Order: sequence, then structure tokens, then C-alpha cells
Amino acid sequence: MKKKNITLKDLPLSGVNVLDLTNVLSGPFATLILSDLGANVIKVEKPTGDDSREFGPIINGESGYFISLNRGKKSIVLDLKEKNDKKIFESLLSKVDVLVDNFKPGTIEKFGFSWNYLSKKYPNLIFAKISGFGETGPLKNYPAYDIIVQAMSGIMSITGKNEKDYVRVGTSIGDIVAGLFCVIGILSQLIRRKNLNIGSKLDISMLDCQIAILENAIARYSIEKKVPVPIGTDHPSISPFGLFKTLDRPIVLAAGNNKIFFKLCECLNDSKMKNNSMFKNNINRNKNLKILRKKIEKKLTKKKSNVWIKKFSKKNIPCSLVNNIKDIVNHSQVLDRKMILDYKDSKIDNLKLSGNPLKFSFVKNKKISKKSPRLDGDRKKILKFFGIN
Amino acid sequence: MKKKNITLKDLPLSGVNVLDLTNVLSGPFATLILSDLGANVIKVEKPTGDDSREFGPIINGESGYFISLNRGKKSIVLDLKEKNDKKIFESLLSKVDVLVDNFKPGTIEKFGFSWNYLSKKYPNLIFAKISGFGETGPLKNYPAYDIIVQAMSGIMSITGKNEKDYVRVGTSIGDIVAGLFCVIGILSQLIRRKNLNIGSKLDISMLDCQIAILENAIARYSIEKKVPVPIGTDHPSISPFGLFKTLDRPIVLAAGNNKIFFKLCECLNDSKMKNNSMFKNNINRNKNLKILRKKIEKKLTKKKSNVWIKKFSKKNIPCSLVNNIKDIVNHSQVLDRKMILDYKDSKIDNLKLSGNPLKFSFVKNKKISKKSPRLDGDRKKILKFFGIN
Repeated sequence: MKKKNITLKDLPLSGVNVLDLTNVLSGPFATLILSDLGANVIKVEKPTGDDSREFGPIINGESGYFISLNRGKKSIVLDLKEKNDKKIFESLLSKVDVLVDNFKPGTIEKFGFSWNYLSKKYPNLIFAKISGFGETGPLKNYPAYDIIVQAMSGIMSITGKNEKDYVRVGTSIGDIVAGLFCVIGILSQLIRRKNLNIGSKLDISMLDCQIAILENAIARYSIEKKVPVPIGTDHPSISPFGLFKTLDRPIVLAAGNNKIFFKLCECLNDSKMKNNSMFKNNINRNKNLKILRKKIEKKLTKKKSNVWIKKFSKKNIPCSLVNNIKDIVNHSQVLDRKMILDYKDSKIDNLKLSGNPLKFSFVKNKKISKKSPRLDGDRKKILKFFGIN
Repeated sequence: MKKKNITLKDLPLSGVNVLDLTNVLSGPFATLILSDLGANVIKVEKPTGDDSREFGPIINGESGYFISLNRGKKSIVLDLKEKNDKKIFESLLSKVDVLVDNFKPGTIEKFGFSWNYLSKKYPNLIFAKISGFGETGPLKNYPAYDIIVQAMSGIMSITGKNEKDYVRVGTSIGDIVAGLFCVIGILSQLIRRKNLNIGSKLDISMLDCQIAILENAIARYSIEKKVPVPIGTDHPSISPFGLFKTLDRPIVLAAGNNKIFFKLCECLNDSKMKNNSMFKNNINRNKNLKILRKKIEKKLTKKKSNVWIKKFSKKNIPCSLVNNIKDIVNHSQVLDRKMILDYKDSKIDNLKLSGNPLKFSFVKNKKISKKSPRLDGDRKKILKFFGIN
């Protein structure tokens, strides 16, 4: 294994090798970002493969779910219960910089790789793990899925139409936000290792990460003693700021301050609304939102959404259609930013995937996706690269 | 300014100085994490202060919203339109490692600090900015708030009860996820600078970041050509996996595989359900979810939620109450993980805040929050630390 010579054109994690034991979503999302940042991600799969290789949507026998989370990584199958595979795993451990897993607490220890063992044998190793509730506390052994932490964390209690109608956030933010914090932790550990030449361990809990993104909900409860509830598309403290009906599709409007609200009144050709003391400032608009909403929708429902969007956009009033996924795949701004990738390989003709939002001055993001690995598809290449027989 | 001697007990960003021009949420959330990681964050505020200093909830004249996002930072007021303050700002620029803003594209350039200028004068400087749509593309100058990017990105189109009933995610994930990616970008830039001794620029778009967390929605549309719609609390491809009624409060259940589903049938004392070919595997359960939900709820509504939670937990069936914010502030697992911080200062007796989910092996997280700065409250200390007169 040759140490990489890093140049000005390289990605920031160029030369960093990651041994990736993760499965399905939270961990694979984290190592996807590491891969997008230039790390060499070695996905170690159990003989049956990452569970998400079976998840729909399926295209020509391959999982679109798996591909969207594993593009750019390499795959090797190792059965950590088997002696010879364990030896290969240890050889890999001695050469990589980072180990990641999202097993339940206690699992990697059962394979013989406690942090006590790892940190002594590989003192430079960075180890990061994600679990539902972390490695400490009364729930540490409790099973978790995304919806469990969405419900347990309070996020679900503030998402929905009203107090009796909670919904799940339509994307798995329980897993995804844990993945993002895991990347932040790993990068921090790499910085620390550059300073001190020593490894460390990171213990990420999906539940902790949901608590961290509750915004001001905890402070609100702590000060006002009122339990926050779901309020549909509205904002708890800014009005008008939500979804409004038009003649056809609904649109969102966000009048974050008086200036925008008064411009909105002008666009609606409603000087009465502008001069009504019930709406003179945000506090009053918030208090009288029901009446205000009726007045705004009375105007908006006279014309189609695209007429209003054009009109409001011209005046820099923040607004948008509720785009669906089809709209987004063809959206000019999204395409211009290379946020939709084209994926092709020997079995797949054309698949669209989400792109990489990290846009640095020293590198141009590409529109063509890197390939996703077949199960065990890079075994030889990996062993050769690391000089393992 | 003395270079810090970094020890094994220090946080990973110890010695890193951040000049923080950000306002309200996305940027301040990013620099909050940098501060939690040990960076010295200098919040440069306009003379009227961060706008969120006015946001509710208010406690003894101070904003709980502001405090929750700015604990641990230092504040100095600088008017970048004013000559002398600009000079101080340049002195700070020459000493710090990272500059962050979340202005609209073009704003910092108006103050005279284009990347062209900055990168020449301060070649080691790392600059990161967050904006609604990024610095390129047809929408680059378009105004954004959280709800605008939630709607524009497609997240709203998959969150809600059904096709006609979208809701906003109850926390501002438009801002928050952009903040998380911004931290990932900055840490990557710090790693690159350690390798190459050179600064760089990062351009984060809130819209891009929402696209990046759509999970498999884009692949699903791309393969199946069906536009994903909101489905309440259910999962698009796993069943049962959602919210279910009981005698009192609803609970979430997640039977991610056959084994868990069969255990669930046993706990419900329903061998008929277990042996019904309509529910024999996940594909069938997904297809027949409406019937399955009715059968499950018929059983669940006979007893109270806490009876079921106890019963399911014993058998390791993933389940949870929909906790509200009050529940969470008193939750044993959350408290054990120090995810609720106690905040006190000269004006505030006791305020609760979200904690830091980054748990490293080399440092113990604290339960007491660092103080949030008063406007311009650290001016002298900051100027002295950097040796500026």
C-alpha cells in the first residue's frame, strides 16, 4: 500500500481509508459522504450482503435503494465469525484510518473487537459507531428503527396537521441526521489525530441526534411551560409563513418581516389588509392568522399558482410550489447545481440519484455517479491495494 | 495571540478560531457545533444584533431561541459599512482560521470581501457560506426561508397525511441540515489545510442539502415512474411500521422483518394473524396494510399504551409512545446521555437546552451549558486575545 501524494486538485479526504461495517441507512449515509469527500471506503459485507440490497425499488435485479447509498464504495465479503476472514479483517484494520459500524451495542465486541482491544492493538485507529440510543443509559440495548426515534424524540409530536394527527417526516431523518453527526465526529477525530497522532472512539445515538435538532422546542417548553403541538404548515412564531390555496395547486409563502408582508399586500392589490391594525406587525399577524389566512386565500384562489409565483418572485417575496419528486428531478436550479446524478453500469441503463451538496472552490462536482459495488465485487482489488494475501 | 498547546484532554477543534458572521439559524447552528467541538467562535454581530435576539420565547428580556443556538460563543459588534470597524474585522481575519457567513450571495462582496480578495490577502483562510440556493444557478439571488426549501425540494411533497394534506417538518430541517453539511465542509477544509497549508471556499445551498436527504425518493421515482406522495406515519416499503391506536395514547410499532412480526402476533395473542397468508411476508403485509392495521388496532385498543409498551419491550419489539417535549425533557435515556443542558446566567435562573450528541472517548460531555453572549459582551476580551488595539 503506497501512501498517497496529496495535491491541490485532490478531494479533502484523499488518502484516507475507511473500513465500513455499516448496514442499510444511517451508517451507509455517513460513509457515502466520506466517499464523496474523497475517502477510500471499503464496505465489509456479511455473506448475505447489506440488507438494503433486497430493498425496493429494484432495477434489473439490483436495488435502487442500495445503489443510492453506496455509489463510490468498494465491497468485500467477510464473515467475522470465520477464522480466516477474521484474519483478513485484522490485516485491513492494521492499514486503515477509520472503522465505522452501526451494529447494536455489544455486537462488534462479540466478534472480538472491543474498543479496549482495538485501541491497544491499533492505537491510531479512529472508530465510530451509530446505534439507536448509544452505548450508555437504560435503553442502550433497546431496538430502534427510524420511526421509533422520530416518535421517542418528540419530533413526531410537533409534525402533523394538529394535536391528534401526527405524521412521520417523509424521509428517514432519524437515520440521516445520525449519519451526518457521525461524519462530523469522524472528521473531528481525523483532525485530532493530525494534532496528537492518536486514535479515538465516537458513540453516536440516533435519539441524541434527534434531540439536537429540536431547534427551540425545548427552550420554548422550558420558558412557556406549554407543550408544543403540530401546527400543519405554519410556523410557531412567524406569520404568514405556510401553505396557502390558489385556484389550482397550493403554494408556500413566507413573509418573515413587515417589509415582505407589505409587499405581499401590494401584490394582492389589498391596501385594506396592509392598513388593518390586526396585521400591522408579526405579533398581531401571528395572533390573527386564521382571519389573515382567509383573506389571503380569498385573493389567491382567484388565479392559478404559477401566476402568483411569477408575480411574487418578481417582488422578491419568498414563495414556492410544493414540488414533487418529478418536479425536482427536472428543476433548473437543482440540475445547475449537479444535485441529480446520472447512474449507469453494466446492468443499469439510466438511474437518477441525489448528488453531493459539498461544493468546494478547489474541485468541480461531477454529474455522472460513481459505480455502486456488486457484493464482494472488489475483493481482489482491495486485498491487492492493501498488500494482503 | 498565543498558539494553543493541544493535549489529550482537549476537544478536537481546540486552538481553531472561527469568525462567525451568521444570523438566525442555519449558520448559527453550524458554528454552535464548531463551538461544541472546541473551536473559539467569535460572533460578529451587526449593531442591532443577530435577528434571533428578538425571537420568542423571551425570558427576562433575553431570547431563549438565541441562547439555544449561541451558547459557548463570544460576541463583538462590528458595522462592516464603517471604516474603523472594517479595520478591526480585517485584523481579526488575519488571525483566524475560519470565516462563516449565511448572507445572501453578493452581500459580503458588497462589504469588500470577495473570495478573490480574501484568498489573495489571507491564503490560509477557510471560508464557508450558506445561502438558500447557493452562489450559482438561476435561483442564486432568490430569497429563501426554511419552508421555501422544504416545499421546493420535494420534502413537503412526501410529508403529511395524504396527497392533499402536506405538512411542514416540525423542526426547521431546511436550515438545520444545511448547517450540518456546512460543518462537514469546514472540517474537511481544515483537514485539507493541514495537508496542503492552504485555504479554500465552501458554497452550501439549503436546497441542495434537502435534495441530499431525500433518501431513496429520487431512485424510486426514477425506476418506478410513480411520484411518491405523503403516507402519514407509514413506511413506503415496510409494514407494519407506523402509528397505531391503543385505548389511550397512540404508539408507534416497527416490525422490520418476519421475526419481529411473528413476535408481535404472539404478544397480541393472535395466532390467526400469524398464520394468515395475507401477512406471511413483508410484501404481503405491505399490500394488505389496511386490513392488517384494522386487525392490530382491534387488539391494541383493548388496553392502554403503557401496558403494550411494557409487553412489546420485553420481547424486543421496537415500539414507542409519541413523546412530547415535556416527556423528552424528563426522559431517563435522554438525561443519562446529557442531552438536556441546564442553562444559568446573571439574568436567567434555569433554562433547558438541547445538548451535544458528539460523544467521544477522550472527553466527558457536561450537563451545564456554557453561557450565551450578550450583544458585544466580549469586545474587550476578543480584541485583547487577538492583540488588536
